[in-house]
Amino acid sequence: MENWDLFLAPYQQVVEELKVKLKVMREQFDNLSDHSPIEFVTGRVKPIPSILIKAKEKGLNADNYHEIQDLAGLRIMCQFVDDIYTVIELLRGRSDFEIVEERDYISRNKVSGYRSYHVVISYPVETINGQVKVLAEIQVRTLAMNFWATIEHSINYKYSGQIPENIHARLRRAAEASARLDEEMSNIREEIQEAQKIFHRKK
Amino acid sequence: MENWDLFLAPYQQVVEELKVKLKVMREQFDNLSDHSPIEFVTGRVKPIPSILIKAKEKGLNADNYHEIQDLAGLRIMCQFVDDIYTVIELLRGRSDFEIVEERDYISRNKVSGYRSYHVVISYPVETINGQVKVLAEIQVRTLAMNFWATIEHSINYKYSGQIPENIHARLRRAAEASARLDEEMSNIREEIQEAQKIFHRKK
Amino acid sequence: MENWDLFLAPYQQVVEELKVKLKVMREQFDNLSDHSPIEFVTGRVKPIPSILIKAKEKGLNADNYHEIQDLAGLRIMCQFVDDIYTVIELLRGRSDFEIVEERDYISRNKVSGYRSYHVVISYPVETINGQVKVLAEIQVRTLAMNFWATIEHSINYKYSGQIPENIHARLRRAAEASARLDEEMSNIREEIQEAQKIFHRKK
Amino acid sequence: MENWDLFLAPYQQVVEELKVKLKVMREQFDNLSDHSPIEFVTGRVKPIPSILIKAKEKGLNADNYHEIQDLAGLRIMCQFVDDIYTVIELLRGRSDFEIVEERDYISRNKVSGYRSYHVVISYPVETINGQVKVLAEIQVRTLAMNFWATIEHSINYKYSGQIPENIHARLRRAAEASARLDEEMSNIREEIQEAQKIFHRKK
Repeated sequence: MENWDLFLAPYQQVVEELKVKLKVMREQFDNLSDHSPIEFVTGRVKPIPSILIKAKEKGLNADNYHEIQDLAGLRIMCQFVDDIYTVIELLRGRSDFEIVEERDYISRNKVSGYRSYHVVISYPVETINGQVKVLAEIQVRTLAMNFWATIEHSINYKYSGQIPENIHARLRRAAEASARLDEEMSNIREEIQEAQKIFHRKK
Repeated sequence: MENWDLFLAPYQQVVEELKVKLKVMREQFDNLSDHSPIEFVTGRVKPIPSILIKAKEKGLNADNYHEIQDLAGLRIMCQFVDDIYTVIELLRGRSDFEIVEERDYISRNKVSGYRSYHVVISYPVETINGQVKVLAEIQVRTLAMNFWATIEHSINYKYSGQIPENIHARLRRAAEASARLDEEMSNIREEIQEAQKIFHRKK
Repeated sequence: MENWDLFLAPYQQVVEELKVKLKVMREQFDNLSDHSPIEFVTGRVKPIPSILIKAKEKGLNADNYHEIQDLAGLRIMCQFVDDIYTVIELLRGRSDFEIVEERDYISRNKVSGYRSYHVVISYPVETINGQVKVLAEIQVRTLAMNFWATIEHSINYKYSGQIPENIHARLRRAAEASARLDEEMSNIREEIQEAQKIFHRKK
Repeated sequence: MENWDLFLAPYQQVVEELKVKLKVMREQFDNLSDHSPIEFVTGRVKPIPSILIKAKEKGLNADNYHEIQDLAGLRIMCQFVDDIYTVIELLRGRSDFEIVEERDYISRNKVSGYRSYHVVISYPVETINGQVKVLAEIQVRTLAMNFWATIEHSINYKYSGQIPENIHARLRRAAEASARLDEEMSNIREEIQEAQKIFHRKK
């Protein structure tokens, strides 16, 4: 890559624009005094060393780096598992980008224990030379999924992807605990909603 | 207006999105090591008291407040007068919004001495209830125009629009000095560009 | 309170200053390629309705609102329980504020299941009328503690503090699951550190 | 310099902290519905190529780079010349840093036409290894001074400091026009203040 700044600029732009757009969704629920399915939003451009590793894995050269789906990465954190699907519906309903692919690692979760819902989009970016469409990946997860994934990522990084089996086993147990936590939280959510329905009926 | 937060939310959103989008244009020129016609960008939602004053002036009631063109206001500051027209061309070339009106207060400047180029756009905003189109005003000006306008605005505010004639006269003289400054700067710009052409030809 | 903006301004200032200062601590660890005990930092000024509720509970009138310790609130999120104590040591070592009180809700956790470490500080703020010292509360917790606390807070808010016993029981079970998750994560952390020590010894 | 990130980190921190602190001063005047002597604040860490050029000029090696006074640079823009001196008084009254040097390029302006008031401070920064004191430069100027300085800087950069005499002459004339503009503005300011005094006496 001759000029990384130039290559990554539209991805930086997508991250900035989508952070604003997704954070606003949260505020819209707040303005309506409604439960927001979005707790918070983060975003980042993939660091150059990670791009090089991924390109090698996928056999891509500099001309094809734009095929990497998560150069622009957004993450939406939710309180409850059900909120994830509400967010997905909201994303599907938008007309400022096109959904290219969806990967549901929640109903069919990965061997590692990773859970998350990934949406790959094609996003039109206005540059000073006209409009270009670039890929971006939006990961939607609960706070518990994110907590586990953050720690798994840092362990994975320390072992360069070669996590020893005994640690792997512990990580899987932690992933199960994280999933159980989400289940218990979901149960509470249903009770809250039932309680609210009873309350509103009584009024 | 029953719920100002709800009414102003899409305008806040336009301001946030456009601030990101216009600032990025500047970075794109920087990445190309090219002179950026954009020096800096600011944005604001019109304060509620100012909305009420303008609505009264225009005889609008709450159902028609969306007709006010500058509820969402962006301001692009340029170094040179010529940069303004470069920016206007860049705005005309974009496909993420539609230009509704242009007002050139530079070639035909106002009696007050005000100089600026206004572009009113119709901008599609994604809300949780679907897409809506809202108006926004982009003001493009040099730093000298902005300097004068900032001070004129604060004086105007202090006198509630009834600036005494002797102060008005001084403001107009200041406006002329500000315009002369822009002219001298433009002359320097042409010399720089000529010098650069000679330099490049010699290489 | 006659002028909330004026009263809350120094608290807003403390939140802004401390967010910058605490985020920088994280970057310093990143610059040293060292594990950062800080994952992320958030901050907020207590909303006015919550101030009024707390003032009523504590029997305070407007002259004594400044005695409320969490008008300015900062939150530091950590990956591991041990990181919390590293952060506390870092806070104790600073000379830009004074620690007034510490409350350890981790070793002695609350009946509700709430776990967190609270540090109340007295922070000198420069205003245009000279220096004033205001209280601020820094909460230090793991991501799992924060996940649980966020949800408990929203449930508590919905029930105005009167959470029904059956939901309370579920929340406590969720709190236990959250604590177990932290324990398993801590075990993994120790293994990582042992693995790293072996690695470094072999070099 | 072996590790620029590590070396520049405390300067980045000073810039971030001071931007927050100085912007807050403006809000404090706004909260009091008083004229703010501060219009806006910007900040930057000196870019590495500029550090290297300055170090060469001053005969400094990497061990002494910390002697460069403007590694951390803040800029406060004012509407009126008189506001500059109000700001200087506010800076002198603060106890969160110490003023090391003041340079008044307004009453005694530079040959180039440059006008600005520079305050060099020693600012205590808390790092994870304890407190360190670093230098920072705060430039205080009117919008007109800033407008001229911005353009002079970009011309100077293009000619690598060797601005041809004919362009130099034009820049000086522009500087004079900029100074005249400030004078006319100051006259208006005095009238406004007199008008306000009359107004308040009549009430």
